[in-house]
Amino acid sequence: MAYELYYWDGIQGRGEFVRLALEEAGADYVDVARTAGGQGEMLRLLDGEEVEHPPFAPPFLRAGKLLIGQTANILLSLGPRHDLAPTDEAGRLWAHQLQLTIADFVDEAHDTHHPIASSLYYEDQRNEALARAADFRRSRMPKYLGYFERVLAHNNSRGGHLVGARLSYPDLSLYQTVAGLRYAFPRAMAELEPNYPRVVALHNWVAARPRIAIYLASNRRIPFNQHGIFRHYPELDGEV
Amino acid sequence: MAYELYYWDGIQGRGEFVRLALEEAGADYVDVARTAGGQGEMLRLLDGEEVEHPPFAPPFLRAGKLLIGQTANILLSLGPRHDLAPTDEAGRLWAHQLQLTIADFVDEAHDTHHPIASSLYYEDQRNEALARAADFRRSRMPKYLGYFERVLAHNNSRGGHLVGARLSYPDLSLYQTVAGLRYAFPRAMAELEPNYPRVVALHNWVAARPRIAIYLASNRRIPFNQHGIFRHYPELDGEV
Repeated sequence: MAYELYYWDGIQGRGEFVRLALEEAGADYVDVARTAGGQGEMLRLLDGEEVEHPPFAPPFLRAGKLLIGQTANILLSLGPRHDLAPTDEAGRLWAHQLQLTIADFVDEAHDTHHPIASSLYYEDQRNEALARAADFRRSRMPKYLGYFERVLAHNNSRGGHLVGARLSYPDLSLYQTVAGLRYAFPRAMAELEPNYPRVVALHNWVAARPRIAIYLASNRRIPFNQHGIFRHYPELDGEV
Repeated sequence: MAYELYYWDGIQGRGEFVRLALEEAGADYVDVARTAGGQGEMLRLLDGEEVEHPPFAPPFLRAGKLLIGQTANILLSLGPRHDLAPTDEAGRLWAHQLQLTIADFVDEAHDTHHPIASSLYYEDQRNEALARAADFRRSRMPKYLGYFERVLAHNNSRGGHLVGARLSYPDLSLYQTVAGLRYAFPRAMAELEPNYPRVVALHNWVAARPRIAIYLASNRRIPFNQHGIFRHYPELDGEV
Protein backbone atom coordinates (compact mmCIF):
# COMPACT_ATOMS: atom_id res chain seq x y z
CA MET A 1 0.00 0.00 0.00
CA ALA A 2 1.44 3.36 -1.04
CA TYR A 3 0.92 6.46 1.05
CA GLU A 4 -0.85 9.32 -0.65
CA LEU A 5 0.56 12.75 0.15
CA TYR A 6 -1.65 15.74 -0.62
CA TYR A 7 0.07 19.08 -0.91
CA TRP A 8 0.06 22.05 -3.27
CA ASP A 9 1.98 21.44 -6.47
CA GLY A 10 4.90 23.71 -7.26
CA ILE A 11 6.21 24.47 -3.79
CA GLN A 12 8.09 22.64 -1.08
CA GLY A 13 6.06 24.32 1.65
CA ARG A 14 4.99 22.33 4.66
CA GLY A 15 4.62 19.26 2.50
CA GLU A 16 8.40 19.05 2.30
CA PHE A 17 8.73 18.07 5.95
CA VAL A 18 6.57 15.04 5.18
CA ARG A 19 8.38 14.27 1.92
CA LEU A 20 11.73 14.17 3.67
CA ALA A 21 10.43 11.67 6.21
CA LEU A 22 8.90 9.46 3.52
CA GLU A 23 12.10 9.61 1.46
CA GLU A 24 14.38 8.82 4.40
CA ALA A 25 12.10 5.91 5.28
CA GLY A 26 12.21 4.61 1.71
CA ALA A 27 8.42 4.56 1.86
CA ASP A 28 6.28 4.08 -1.20
CA TYR A 29 4.19 7.21 -1.75
CA VAL A 30 2.35 9.18 -4.38
CA ASP A 31 2.59 12.97 -4.39
CA VAL A 32 -1.01 13.21 -5.48
CA ALA A 33 -1.35 16.88 -6.45
CA ARG A 34 1.61 16.50 -8.82
CA THR A 35 -0.18 13.79 -10.79
CA ALA A 36 -2.77 14.38 -13.50
CA GLY A 37 -6.05 15.35 -11.87
CA GLY A 38 -4.44 15.20 -8.45
CA GLN A 39 -5.03 18.82 -7.48
CA GLY A 40 -8.74 18.39 -8.05
CA GLU A 41 -8.74 15.27 -5.93
CA MET A 42 -6.98 17.20 -3.14
CA LEU A 43 -9.52 20.02 -3.25
CA ARG A 44 -12.35 17.51 -3.29
CA LEU A 45 -11.03 15.96 -0.07
CA LEU A 46 -10.62 19.41 1.51
CA ASP A 47 -14.19 20.41 0.69
CA GLY A 48 -15.78 17.01 0.53
CA GLU A 49 -18.59 15.86 2.67
CA GLU A 50 -17.52 12.23 2.52
CA VAL A 51 -14.37 12.66 4.59
CA GLU A 52 -14.75 11.50 8.17
CA HIS A 53 -11.90 13.64 9.50
CA PRO A 54 -11.64 16.67 7.22
CA PRO A 55 -8.27 18.44 7.25
CA PHE A 56 -8.13 22.20 7.62
CA ALA A 57 -5.40 22.59 5.00
CA PRO A 58 -2.73 20.65 3.14
CA PRO A 59 -0.54 18.77 3.75
CA PHE A 60 -2.49 15.68 4.62
CA LEU A 61 -1.59 12.05 4.20
CA ARG A 62 -3.66 9.03 3.42
CA ALA A 63 -2.25 6.03 5.24
CA GLY A 64 -4.54 3.09 4.66
CA LYS A 65 -7.86 4.05 6.20
CA LEU A 66 -6.48 7.11 7.96
CA LEU A 67 -6.48 10.61 6.53
CA ILE A 68 -4.06 12.57 8.70
CA GLY A 69 -3.61 16.35 8.68
CA GLN A 70 -1.25 18.85 10.28
CA THR A 71 2.43 18.44 9.40
CA ALA A 72 3.66 17.65 12.90
CA ASN A 73 0.81 15.19 13.41
CA ILE A 74 1.66 13.37 10.18
CA LEU A 75 5.25 13.05 11.39
CA LEU A 76 4.02 11.87 14.78
CA SER A 77 2.21 9.05 13.03
CA LEU A 78 5.08 8.19 10.67
CA GLY A 79 7.74 8.19 13.39
CA PRO A 80 7.08 4.83 15.02
CA ARG A 81 6.06 3.16 11.76
CA HIS A 82 9.36 3.94 10.07
CA ASP A 83 11.86 4.04 12.89
CA LEU A 84 12.02 7.84 12.66
CA ALA A 85 11.38 8.44 16.37
CA PRO A 86 12.03 6.77 19.71
CA THR A 87 9.34 4.40 20.89
CA ASP A 88 9.56 5.16 24.62
CA GLU A 89 7.25 7.87 25.92
CA ALA A 90 9.98 10.30 26.96
CA GLY A 91 11.75 10.11 23.60
CA ARG A 92 8.54 10.22 21.60
CA LEU A 93 7.34 13.37 23.39
CA TRP A 94 10.75 15.02 23.18
CA ALA A 95 10.94 14.45 19.42
CA HIS A 96 7.47 15.89 19.01
CA GLN A 97 8.25 18.87 21.24
CA LEU A 98 11.23 19.70 19.02
CA GLN A 99 9.10 19.30 15.90
CA LEU A 100 6.51 21.74 17.24
CA THR A 101 9.26 24.25 18.04
CA ILE A 102 10.59 23.89 14.49
CA ALA A 103 7.04 24.46 13.24
CA ASP A 104 6.87 27.71 15.22
CA PHE A 105 10.19 28.81 13.71
CA VAL A 106 8.94 28.01 10.20
CA ASP A 107 5.69 29.90 10.80
CA GLU A 108 7.69 32.96 11.79
CA ALA A 109 9.89 32.61 8.69
CA HIS A 110 6.73 32.60 6.58
CA ASP A 111 5.31 35.65 8.29
CA THR A 112 8.40 37.73 7.41
CA HIS A 113 7.00 38.11 3.88
CA HIS A 114 3.33 37.98 4.87
CA PRO A 115 2.99 39.81 8.18
CA ILE A 116 -0.48 41.22 7.49
CA ALA A 117 -2.42 38.65 5.47
CA SER A 118 -1.62 35.49 3.53
CA SER A 119 -4.35 36.49 1.12
CA LEU A 120 -2.54 39.68 0.05
CA TYR A 121 0.46 39.95 -2.26
CA TYR A 122 3.88 40.51 -0.80
CA GLU A 123 4.02 43.84 -2.59
CA ASP A 124 0.97 44.99 -0.65
CA GLN A 125 2.64 44.40 2.71
CA ARG A 126 6.25 45.09 1.80
CA ASN A 127 6.88 47.84 4.35
CA GLU A 128 5.47 45.73 7.16
CA ALA A 129 7.53 42.81 5.88
CA LEU A 130 10.70 44.88 6.11
CA ALA A 131 10.03 45.55 9.78
CA ARG A 132 9.06 42.00 10.62
CA ALA A 133 12.01 40.51 8.73
CA ALA A 134 14.45 42.82 10.50
CA ASP A 135 13.19 41.59 13.85
CA PHE A 136 13.29 38.00 12.62
CA ARG A 137 16.93 38.29 11.55
CA ARG A 138 18.09 40.17 14.64
CA SER A 139 16.08 38.50 17.34
CA ARG A 140 14.16 35.40 16.34
CA MET A 141 16.70 33.58 14.15
CA PRO A 142 19.42 33.75 16.83
CA LYS A 143 16.93 32.69 19.49
CA TYR A 144 15.72 29.61 17.64
CA LEU A 145 19.10 28.63 16.18
CA GLY A 146 20.69 29.09 19.59
CA TYR A 147 18.05 26.87 21.12
CA PHE A 148 18.68 24.02 18.71
CA GLU A 149 22.44 24.44 19.09
CA ARG A 150 21.96 24.07 22.84
CA VAL A 151 19.80 20.99 22.40
CA LEU A 152 22.48 19.41 20.22
CA ALA A 153 25.22 20.33 22.71
CA HIS A 154 23.13 18.87 25.55
CA ASN A 155 22.66 15.52 23.84
CA ASN A 156 25.15 13.24 25.54
CA SER A 157 24.97 10.70 22.75
CA ARG A 158 27.34 12.86 20.73
CA GLY A 159 26.20 11.61 17.34
CA GLY A 160 25.00 15.02 16.24
CA HIS A 161 21.31 14.11 16.46
CA LEU A 162 18.63 16.12 18.18
CA VAL A 163 17.19 13.09 19.99
CA GLY A 164 19.32 10.32 21.43
CA ALA A 165 21.82 8.45 19.28
CA ARG A 166 19.79 8.03 16.10
CA LEU A 167 18.11 10.00 13.39
CA SER A 168 14.55 11.13 14.12
CA TYR A 169 12.08 13.19 12.14
CA PRO A 170 13.01 16.53 13.77
CA ASP A 171 16.53 16.11 12.40
CA LEU A 172 15.05 16.06 8.90
CA SER A 173 12.87 19.07 9.64
CA LEU A 174 15.72 21.11 11.09
CA TYR A 175 17.76 20.30 7.98
CA GLN A 176 14.93 21.65 5.84
CA THR A 177 14.62 24.77 7.95
CA VAL A 178 18.33 25.57 7.65
CA ALA A 179 18.20 24.95 3.90
CA GLY A 180 15.20 27.25 3.63
CA LEU A 181 16.77 30.00 5.69
CA ARG A 182 19.90 29.83 3.53
CA TYR A 183 17.73 30.34 0.47
CA ALA A 184 15.68 33.15 1.96
CA PHE A 185 18.26 34.94 4.08
CA PRO A 186 21.72 34.16 2.64
CA ARG A 187 23.34 37.26 4.13
CA ALA A 188 21.89 36.77 7.58
CA MET A 189 22.73 33.08 7.58
CA ALA A 190 26.32 33.67 6.44
CA GLU A 191 26.69 35.95 9.42
CA LEU A 192 24.92 33.73 11.93
CA GLU A 193 26.05 30.23 11.00
CA PRO A 194 29.51 30.37 12.63
CA ASN A 195 27.71 30.68 15.97
CA TYR A 196 25.79 27.45 15.46
CA PRO A 197 28.28 24.80 14.29
CA ARG A 198 26.21 21.84 15.50
CA VAL A 199 23.13 23.02 13.63
CA VAL A 200 25.20 23.43 10.46
CA ALA A 201 26.76 20.00 10.96
CA LEU A 202 23.29 18.49 11.30
CA HIS A 203 22.22 20.14 8.06
CA ASN A 204 25.25 18.64 6.34
CA TRP A 205 24.93 15.08 7.60
CA VAL A 206 21.21 14.96 6.83
CA ALA A 207 21.89 16.17 3.27
CA ALA A 208 24.48 13.39 2.93
CA ARG A 209 22.19 10.55 4.04
CA PRO A 210 22.06 8.20 1.05
CA ARG A 211 18.32 8.33 0.47
CA ILE A 212 18.13 12.06 1.17
CA ALA A 213 21.02 12.80 -1.18
CA ILE A 214 19.32 10.84 -3.95
CA TYR A 215 16.06 12.60 -3.27
CA LEU A 216 17.60 16.07 -3.29
CA ALA A 217 19.19 15.35 -6.68
CA SER A 218 15.94 14.02 -8.13
CA ASN A 219 13.12 15.91 -9.78
CA ARG A 220 10.90 14.91 -6.89
CA ARG A 221 12.61 17.72 -4.96
CA ILE A 222 10.96 20.95 -6.05
CA PRO A 223 13.50 23.80 -6.04
CA PHE A 224 13.05 26.62 -3.57
CA ASN A 225 11.11 29.42 -5.23
CA GLN A 226 9.21 32.63 -4.57
CA HIS A 227 5.90 30.96 -3.84
CA GLY A 228 6.76 28.82 -0.82
CA ILE A 229 7.36 29.46 2.85
CA PHE A 230 10.99 30.46 2.32
CA ARG A 231 11.29 33.27 -0.21
CA HIS A 232 14.31 35.30 -1.14
CA TYR A 233 13.60 39.02 -1.20
CA PRO A 234 17.01 40.74 -0.89
CA GLU A 235 15.46 43.63 1.00
CA LEU A 236 14.14 41.28 3.67
CA ASP A 237 17.66 39.92 4.04
CA GLY A 238 19.01 43.35 4.90
CA GLU A 239 20.11 44.45 1.44
CA VAL A 240 19.26 48.03 0.61
CA MET B 1 2.63 13.06 42.81
CA ALA B 2 1.47 16.52 41.79
CA TYR B 3 2.13 17.88 38.33
CA GLU B 4 4.12 21.09 38.19
CA LEU B 5 2.90 23.55 35.58
CA TYR B 6 5.30 26.31 34.58
CA TYR B 7 3.82 29.35 32.91
CA TRP B 8 4.06 33.13 33.20
CA ASP B 9 2.15 34.52 36.16
CA GLY B 10 -0.59 37.03 35.48
CA ILE B 11 -1.93 35.80 32.15
CA GLN B 12 -3.96 32.88 30.89
CA GLY B 13 -1.87 32.60 27.73
CA ARG B 14 -0.97 29.20 26.38
CA GLY B 15 -0.77 27.85 29.91
CA GLU B 16 -4.56 28.04 30.11
CA PHE B 17 -5.02 25.20 27.64
CA VAL B 18 -3.04 23.00 30.01
CA ARG B 19 -4.82 24.31 33.11
CA LEU B 20 -8.22 23.45 31.64
CA ALA B 21 -7.11 19.87 30.96
CA LEU B 22 -5.68 19.47 34.47
CA GLU B 23 -8.83 20.95 36.02
CA GLU B 24 -11.21 18.79 33.98
CA ALA B 25 -9.13 15.75 34.94
CA GLY B 26 -9.26 16.69 38.62
CA ALA B 27 -5.48 16.33 38.60
CA ASP B 28 -3.31 17.51 41.44
CA TYR B 29 -1.03 20.28 40.17
CA VAL B 30 0.99 23.25 41.30
CA ASP B 31 0.98 26.40 39.17
CA VAL B 32 4.61 27.00 40.02
CA ALA B 33 5.20 30.54 38.77
CA ARG B 34 2.25 31.73 40.88
CA THR B 35 3.92 30.50 44.08
CA ALA B 36 6.60 32.35 46.05
CA GLY B 37 9.89 32.01 44.20
CA GLY B 38 8.23 30.08 41.43
CA GLN B 39 9.00 32.48 38.61
CA GLY B 40 12.71 32.21 39.38
CA GLU B 41 12.46 28.43 39.36
CA MET B 42 10.78 28.58 35.96
CA LEU B 43 13.49 30.82 34.51
CA ARG B 44 16.16 28.57 35.99
CA LEU B 45 14.67 25.57 34.19
CA LEU B 46 14.46 27.57 30.96
CA ASP B 47 18.09 28.62 31.12
CA GLY B 48 19.45 25.80 33.20
CA GLU B 49 22.14 23.49 32.10
CA GLU B 50 20.87 20.65 34.27
CA VAL B 51 17.70 20.04 32.24
CA GLU B 52 17.95 17.07 29.93
CA HIS B 53 15.22 18.25 27.57
CA PRO B 54 15.20 22.05 27.76
CA PRO B 55 11.95 23.71 26.69
CA PHE B 56 12.03 26.63 24.27
CA ALA B 57 9.38 28.59 26.16
CA PRO B 58 6.61 28.19 28.75
CA PRO B 59 4.30 26.43 29.23
CA PHE B 60 6.04 23.27 30.29
CA LEU B 61 4.92 20.56 32.66
CA ARG B 62 6.82 18.37 35.04
CA ALA B 63 5.18 14.97 35.17
CA GLY B 64 7.29 12.70 37.35
CA LYS B 65 10.64 12.44 35.61
CA LEU B 66 9.42 14.07 32.42
CA LEU B 67 9.67 17.76 31.64
CA ILE B 68 7.34 18.31 28.68
CA GLY B 69 7.17 21.46 26.57
CA GLN B 70 4.90 22.79 23.82
CA THR B 71 1.23 23.18 24.70
CA ALA B 72 -0.11 20.64 22.21
CA ASN B 73 2.57 18.15 23.23
CA ILE B 74 1.66 18.50 26.90
CA LEU B 75 -1.96 17.79 26.01
CA LEU B 76 -0.88 14.84 23.88
CA SER B 77 0.79 13.39 26.96
CA LEU B 78 -2.08 14.17 29.33
CA GLY B 79 -4.79 12.82 27.01
CA PRO B 80 -4.35 9.08 27.57
CA ARG B 81 -3.40 9.47 31.24
CA HIS B 82 -6.61 11.25 32.13
CA ASP B 83 -9.15 9.93 29.69
CA LEU B 84 -9.07 13.19 27.75
CA ALA B 85 -8.45 11.58 24.35
CA PRO B 86 -9.30 8.38 22.52
CA THR B 87 -6.77 5.58 22.92
CA ASP B 88 -7.00 4.13 19.41
CA GLU B 89 -4.57 5.48 16.85
CA ALA B 90 -7.15 7.08 14.57
CA GLY B 91 -8.86 8.92 17.42
CA ARG B 92 -5.62 9.94 19.07
CA LEU B 93 -4.26 11.46 15.86
CA TRP B 94 -7.57 13.15 15.05
CA ALA B 95 -7.71 14.79 18.48
CA HIS B 96 -4.14 16.01 18.08
CA GLN B 97 -4.79 17.26 14.55
CA LEU B 98 -7.66 19.37 15.86
CA GLN B 99 -5.50 20.66 18.70
CA LEU B 100 -2.80 21.77 16.28
CA THR B 101 -5.39 23.56 14.16
CA ILE B 102 -6.68 25.34 17.28
CA ALA B 103 -3.07 26.29 18.05
CA ASP B 104 -2.73 27.87 14.60
CA PHE B 105 -5.95 29.81 15.17
CA VAL B 106 -4.69 31.05 18.54
CA ASP B 107 -1.33 32.07 17.04
CA GLU B 108 -3.17 34.15 14.48
CA ALA B 109 -5.31 35.73 17.19
CA HIS B 110 -2.11 36.73 19.00
CA ASP B 111 -0.55 38.20 15.90
CA THR B 112 -3.47 40.58 15.40
CA HIS B 113 -2.00 42.78 18.14
CA HIS B 114 1.64 41.90 17.47
CA PRO B 115 2.02 41.53 13.70
CA ILE B 116 5.58 42.87 13.55
CA ALA B 117 7.40 41.75 16.68
CA SER B 118 6.46 40.29 20.06
CA SER B 119 9.29 42.31 21.55
CA LEU B 120 7.69 45.64 20.62
CA TYR B 121 4.77 47.34 22.33
CA TYR B 122 1.35 47.20 20.73
CA GLU B 123 1.46 50.98 20.35
CA ASP B 124 4.54 50.64 18.16
CA GLN B 125 2.77 48.38 15.67
CA ARG B 126 -0.76 49.68 15.97
CA ASN B 127 -1.26 50.56 12.30
CA GLU B 128 -0.05 47.17 11.19
CA ALA B 129 -2.26 45.58 13.84
CA LEU B 130 -5.29 47.38 12.43
CA ALA B 131 -4.65 45.83 9.02
CA ARG B 132 -3.93 42.36 10.35
CA ALA B 133 -6.92 42.37 12.69
CA ALA B 134 -9.25 43.45 9.88
CA ASP B 135 -8.13 40.46 7.82
CA PHE B 136 -8.45 38.20 10.85
CA ARG B 137 -12.03 39.27 11.49
CA ARG B 138 -13.11 39.16 7.86
CA SER B 139 -11.29 36.13 6.61
CA ARG B 140 -9.54 34.02 9.22
CA MET B 141 -12.15 33.90 12.00
CA PRO B 142 -14.89 32.70 9.63
CA LYS B 143 -12.52 30.18 8.07
CA TYR B 144 -11.50 28.62 11.37
CA LEU B 145 -14.90 28.84 13.04
CA GLY B 146 -16.51 27.41 9.92
CA TYR B 147 -14.04 24.55 9.95
CA PHE B 148 -14.82 23.58 13.55
CA GLU B 149 -18.56 23.96 12.90
CA ARG B 150 -18.16 21.52 10.02
CA VAL B 151 -16.17 19.08 12.16
CA LEU B 152 -18.92 19.17 14.80
CA ALA B 153 -21.62 18.69 12.18
CA HIS B 154 -19.68 15.78 10.68
CA ASN B 155 -19.40 13.94 13.98
CA ASN B 156 -22.06 11.26 13.81
CA SER B 157 -21.98 10.71 17.55
CA ARG B 158 -24.17 13.80 17.96
CA GLY B 159 -23.08 14.58 21.49
CA GLY B 160 -21.63 17.92 20.50
CA HIS B 161 -18.02 16.81 20.92
CA LEU B 162 -15.24 17.34 18.41
CA VAL B 163 -14.02 13.75 18.65
CA GLY B 164 -16.33 10.79 18.96
CA ALA B 165 -18.92 10.59 21.73
CA ARG B 166 -16.87 11.90 24.65
CA LEU B 167 -15.02 14.96 25.83
CA SER B 168 -11.41 15.25 24.65
CA TYR B 169 -8.79 17.92 25.18
CA PRO B 170 -9.53 19.81 21.93
CA ASP B 171 -13.06 20.46 23.25
CA LEU B 172 -11.51 22.29 26.21
CA SER B 173 -9.16 24.23 23.94
CA LEU B 174 -11.90 25.27 21.54
CA TYR B 175 -13.94 26.47 24.52
CA GLN B 176 -10.98 28.61 25.60
CA THR B 177 -10.52 29.97 22.10
CA VAL B 178 -14.16 31.04 21.83
CA ALA B 179 -13.99 32.62 25.28
CA GLY B 180 -10.84 34.49 24.28
CA LEU B 181 -12.30 35.69 21.00
CA ARG B 182 -15.38 36.96 22.82
CA TYR B 183 -13.13 38.97 25.11
CA ALA B 184 -10.91 40.33 22.34
CA PHE B 185 -13.44 40.78 19.54
CA PRO B 186 -16.91 41.14 21.10
CA ARG B 187 -18.36 42.98 18.10
CA ALA B 188 -17.00 40.56 15.54
CA MET B 189 -18.09 37.55 17.60
CA ALA B 190 -21.58 38.91 18.14
CA GLU B 191 -21.89 39.15 14.39
CA LEU B 192 -20.30 35.79 13.59
CA GLU B 193 -21.64 33.49 16.29
CA PRO B 194 -25.11 32.91 14.80
CA ASN B 195 -23.34 31.19 11.91
CA TYR B 196 -21.63 28.68 14.18
CA PRO B 197 -24.25 27.31 16.57
CA ARG B 198 -22.41 24.05 17.25
CA VAL B 199 -19.23 25.88 18.22
CA VAL B 200 -21.19 28.13 20.57
CA ALA B 201 -22.98 25.11 22.05
CA LEU B 202 -19.62 23.46 22.68
CA HIS B 203 -18.41 26.58 24.46
CA ASN B 204 -21.48 26.47 26.66
CA TRP B 205 -21.41 22.82 27.60
CA VAL B 206 -17.70 22.93 28.39
CA ALA B 207 -18.21 25.96 30.64
CA ALA B 208 -20.97 24.03 32.44
CA ARG B 209 -18.90 20.91 33.15
CA PRO B 210 -18.85 20.64 36.95
CA ARG B 211 -15.10 20.85 37.43
CA ILE B 212 -14.68 23.52 34.76
CA ALA B 213 -17.49 25.63 36.24
CA ILE B 214 -15.86 25.45 39.67
CA TYR B 215 -12.49 26.32 38.17
CA LEU B 216 -13.83 29.30 36.22
CA ALA B 217 -15.39 30.69 39.40
CA SER B 218 -12.20 30.21 41.41
CA ASN B 219 -9.25 32.52 41.79
CA ARG B 220 -7.14 29.92 39.98
CA ARG B 221 -8.72 31.26 36.78
CA ILE B 222 -6.84 34.43 35.90
CA PRO B 223 -9.19 36.95 34.24
CA PHE B 224 -8.60 37.86 30.61
CA ASN B 225 -6.48 40.99 30.47
CA GLN B 226 -4.40 43.17 28.15
CA HIS B 227 -1.20 41.15 28.55
CA GLY B 228 -2.23 37.76 27.24
CA ILE B 229 -2.89 36.25 23.83
CA PHE B 230 -6.43 37.60 23.64
CA ARG B 231 -6.51 41.37 24.17
CA HIS B 232 -9.38 43.75 23.73
CA TYR B 233 -8.42 46.81 21.72
CA PRO B 234 -11.72 48.27 20.43
CA GLU B 235 -10.03 49.51 17.26
CA LEU B 236 -8.93 45.96 16.40
CA ASP B 237 -12.54 44.86 16.78
CA GLY B 238 -13.66 47.32 14.12
CA GLU B 239 -14.64 50.22 16.35
CA VAL B 240 -13.57 53.58 15.01
